[in-house]
Amino acid sequence: MKDCQSIIEETYNLVKEDNKGNVASYIPELSKVDSNKFGVCLTTVEGEQYTYGDFNESFSIQSTAKVLSLSLAYDILGDQIFKRVGVEPSGVAFNSLSQLEAENGIPRNPLINSGAIVICDILCDELKDPKKELLEFIRRVANSNTIHYCPKIAKSEKDTGFRNYALINYLKSFGNIKNDVDTVIELYFHLCSIKMNCVELSIAFGYLSNKGKQLITHKRILSEARTKRVNAIMSLCGFYDEAGEFAYKVGLPGKSGVGGGIAAILPTNFSIAIWSPKLNAKGNSYRGMKFLELFTSKTEDTIF
Amino acid sequence: MKDCQSIIEETYNLVKEDNKGNVASYIPELSKVDSNKFGVCLTTVEGEQYTYGDFNESFSIQSTAKVLSLSLAYDILGDQIFKRVGVEPSGVAFNSLSQLEAENGIPRNPLINSGAIVICDILCDELKDPKKELLEFIRRVANSNTIHYCPKIAKSEKDTGFRNYALINYLKSFGNIKNDVDTVIELYFHLCSIKMNCVELSIAFGYLSNKGKQLITHKRILSEARTKRVNAIMSLCGFYDEAGEFAYKVGLPGKSGVGGGIAAILPTNFSIAIWSPKLNAKGNSYRGMKFLELFTSKTEDTIF
Amino acid sequence: MKDCQSIIEETYNLVKEDNKGNVASYIPELSKVDSNKFGVCLTTVEGEQYTYGDFNESFSIQSTAKVLSLSLAYDILGDQIFKRVGVEPSGVAFNSLSQLEAENGIPRNPLINSGAIVICDILCDELKDPKKELLEFIRRVANSNTIHYCPKIAKSEKDTGFRNYALINYLKSFGNIKNDVDTVIELYFHLCSIKMNCVELSIAFGYLSNKGKQLITHKRILSEARTKRVNAIMSLCGFYDEAGEFAYKVGLPGKSGVGGGIAAILPTNFSIAIWSPKLNAKGNSYRGMKFLELFTSKTEDTIF
Amino acid sequence: MKDCQSIIEETYNLVKEDNKGNVASYIPELSKVDSNKFGVCLTTVEGEQYTYGDFNESFSIQSTAKVLSLSLAYDILGDQIFKRVGVEPSGVAFNSLSQLEAENGIPRNPLINSGAIVICDILCDELKDPKKELLEFIRRVANSNTIHYCPKIAKSEKDTGFRNYALINYLKSFGNIKNDVDTVIELYFHLCSIKMNCVELSIAFGYLSNKGKQLITHKRILSEARTKRVNAIMSLCGFYDEAGEFAYKVGLPGKSGVGGGIAAILPTNFSIAIWSPKLNAKGNSYRGMKFLELFTSKTEDTIF
Repeated sequence: MKDCQSIIEETYNLVKEDNKGNVASYIPELSKVDSNKFGVCLTTVEGEQYTYGDFNESFSIQSTAKVLSLSLAYDILGDQIFKRVGVEPSGVAFNSLSQLEAENGIPRNPLINSGAIVICDILCDELKDPKKELLEFIRRVANSNTIHYCPKIAKSEKDTGFRNYALINYLKSFGNIKNDVDTVIELYFHLCSIKMNCVELSIAFGYLSNKGKQLITHKRILSEARTKRVNAIMSLCGFYDEAGEFAYKVGLPGKSGVGGGIAAILPTNFSIAIWSPKLNAKGNSYRGMKFLELFTSKTEDTIF
Repeated sequence: MKDCQSIIEETYNLVKEDNKGNVASYIPELSKVDSNKFGVCLTTVEGEQYTYGDFNESFSIQSTAKVLSLSLAYDILGDQIFKRVGVEPSGVAFNSLSQLEAENGIPRNPLINSGAIVICDILCDELKDPKKELLEFIRRVANSNTIHYCPKIAKSEKDTGFRNYALINYLKSFGNIKNDVDTVIELYFHLCSIKMNCVELSIAFGYLSNKGKQLITHKRILSEARTKRVNAIMSLCGFYDEAGEFAYKVGLPGKSGVGGGIAAILPTNFSIAIWSPKLNAKGNSYRGMKFLELFTSKTEDTIF
Repeated sequence: MKDCQSIIEETYNLVKEDNKGNVASYIPELSKVDSNKFGVCLTTVEGEQYTYGDFNESFSIQSTAKVLSLSLAYDILGDQIFKRVGVEPSGVAFNSLSQLEAENGIPRNPLINSGAIVICDILCDELKDPKKELLEFIRRVANSNTIHYCPKIAKSEKDTGFRNYALINYLKSFGNIKNDVDTVIELYFHLCSIKMNCVELSIAFGYLSNKGKQLITHKRILSEARTKRVNAIMSLCGFYDEAGEFAYKVGLPGKSGVGGGIAAILPTNFSIAIWSPKLNAKGNSYRGMKFLELFTSKTEDTIF
Repeated sequence: MKDCQSIIEETYNLVKEDNKGNVASYIPELSKVDSNKFGVCLTTVEGEQYTYGDFNESFSIQSTAKVLSLSLAYDILGDQIFKRVGVEPSGVAFNSLSQLEAENGIPRNPLINSGAIVICDILCDELKDPKKELLEFIRRVANSNTIHYCPKIAKSEKDTGFRNYALINYLKSFGNIKNDVDTVIELYFHLCSIKMNCVELSIAFGYLSNKGKQLITHKRILSEARTKRVNAIMSLCGFYDEAGEFAYKVGLPGKSGVGGGIAAILPTNFSIAIWSPKLNAKGNSYRGMKFLELFTSKTEDTIF
């Protein structure tokens, strides 16, 4: 095997020109991003780091952050959280309401919108200052104090997120939201507004590749058993209705966001973050998916 | 870690008394089985074998066989087969028709009934004597010439399998069955009627743990890349709408059957087969699931 | 045929003791009603009136009012309103979201919640002071200046109507709500809070039996052609997923409400209002349905 | 009002040139028909008859025949038949399987394919020689001994009707088909293959406009109460998912077939049959629908 840096660069350059798809446009703030941006960062459990392209630039990590809020809630409450949200793949679009109707307001999993909203409700129950403490947790896993919520994006989501308002009210009608609708959705929109660069995102997901311990500080974020379970959930539910495609072609647990970011991990090996804003038809980063497919073919790194 | 045999026996004995659930009753032949049967066999990629309980008794492997027909079709035609069947988890019951309606006759994946029927249609196209050649393939992967179709079970399925007749006619109405309905369903019912014991089943799935090579003969069954992909599909689709639960609790690619059998593998490590006829509400072996959950907790063997 | 008053009394007394079902409990204000109440009023196109029981007591007419808001919007905009709401029966529960998902935010018809909300949005567009003008219209059709919105019920709906909030936000996400969500739902909750007694309700629906003309003032409410069309919509969509049952057993265009009221008409003949608070499993007045079934059997009055 | 013949001719000529849509092509025999054909026959309860265009030519009445098989089963068994089939509009396509899945194999109504198949199963139970006796019944209602099943069309349906095979096997899997699948579907395909001309079809539906009595022989076909109920079912379920549109625009109980025929009735007045082979997007005769819309506007004849 060639060294990791060479393979990353080689893969990056092979994928670079094939920049298909469309930048997310449903909120104005996301549509303004430069669609040529393309960055990568891989961090190993030994702490080595390989970077390339626009790895140093912050972007909206969007749904990728749902893995972090899930981890926090799971760490606090344990398996109890799965009374209110499932662990099964959804089989339909990430913001679908019909499945929720058929299943009495229990979201399929914590990584689709409805499930992440329920997790936010749990955090509102369990934390004194949910917005502050969630941010602190995210900074701790990413080992960076310069990570912030982006108020513009949070505002933009709030002004246009009618489907998320529909979801939370629907969940509430089934009794699966305990707190005030406005409080919970405020936390949710802030969660999705988090900005990181590829280095931070790679480190933020590092504990999932490291049996639950932060890669740099070596502090425990999640128990080893729960870490495996979060990885299992990412494997089945991390890529909306392209989860199977991703497992099939890439074979790593991971999570994407409509900002064009993807984080994926190989247990006991590494955590990788890629960012390229244009999305494929399923809402996942077009070049990000391509990069990971090619990269894992070259390195033969998959969980399978 | 204690030696493998001890852990198997310990786990077996812990689970043994908790024999909940019901034997599959939808076909008379399955309902006649002794519901106390419980057997295990684990075979490592080095060829070591650990057995316990009723490991030596044949049972109807049912849907577990769908991984084998998929492998054969995949080996013959490659990725072309995925024009006619997806790789996404289904999110609904294994014999559901509504998803098929929404998705124009393309089954979600090759491990639910509709998808396995399409695979049988492909085999009818590609093989001269599909029933004979499929059996030969199964014997080759299991390294056993005494494996047979069970005519009684095949007949029983035929007489009562109205939902499978509904599925195949529905697929045909969408143009996704090329051959005669009766020819294809005959092959499908025979596939599901295969009988093996735990030792044979463990060996039959062994190539999936061994980068595509048969565990004993070391002959290549499937390329390394395709082996990973079959494992990915098993991970997401092997346990009907309990796939997430299984990934979450067990964390191994695997496949269950309504005869009470489960086969699962740890890539580059081992293949394990468990048999216990009583099924949980989702149609998977009650003790089989429990055994694997406990076993992987003890050994800490998961892909995550 | 016996005279109308006798048949009404006879039917009333036959049905009276069979007071099954449950009073609507989803909002506190509705659950407080005396469940023994039972009133009837029939008004003919000649202006004769037959009353019995608690005909003189006001109750919350709830969804029955949706026929009136539909008529007002239809009178203002004509067939244009059917670009934003269909005329087909829904086949699912009145507050279902899944059909809306499948049909891109176009409600099946104007008498289910989602459709009535769209009608309210249209009224917000077309009227200067929608709440005031809608009430004036309702008073005009009922020929009564003492009809009011019930602020307690409107408030109660607002505090607990999460599913309606889900619906309106979902509609808005499809672009099928033009105005501010809060403005529109305020009008909707007020519409549903209208209180009338059986006499007023019978007269309020009278124009639908009288080719569009108010029964007492003889003023035109709706053109003759549009009156027929509203009757057609009531026939197919007036009783949620019991529309077929009602057509089959009663055979009159009508509309029910969860307050236990039902209004029904025989074109060119009469308008009848019944009130009995306990609801059957489908959400329609238990005794109201029984009364109409028996009454139309006795009088042989149906549109079929 | 002008005389009936003039209005028919005037309407016919207005609609004639607007011959949009497509002839049904799913079975070869139907696609061979001359798409310019256009015929009308109206028969009053007094026995007067008005005809125009190709009223004298036989065509495949297809699903229109389902009203006749329903009437026969209803006459034999009464309301018992509604234990196995509903009276609610379906809200989805006529050959949909997903609703059947959600509702445990009870078809929504007897006029969609699944419901008509259940009615055929009932006739197989109740009649000695179902095919022969059903034809005799149809000849009796149409007062014509020259009506036949069309073996070519029945054969054509059989060879290509995979979705109907899917439906019947699916129904059987729910236990809602008592007889052998092949026997029942044979009757069903024959029912749909019936050929009539407009005069025969108009007379065949005449009893529904005449309180249950045949128009010419005055023999009772169905009781008066049941006649009303069949009319109610036609009103809500006669035009697939265009039932509301038809009620809204035409306002008569009726039933269409993919052969381009429509039969509709005005209770206590007349029965009308129209034939024009090209279908609109919903599978109903394009000119047939237009004709009835215009005709009922001119005559102001509707049940509403």
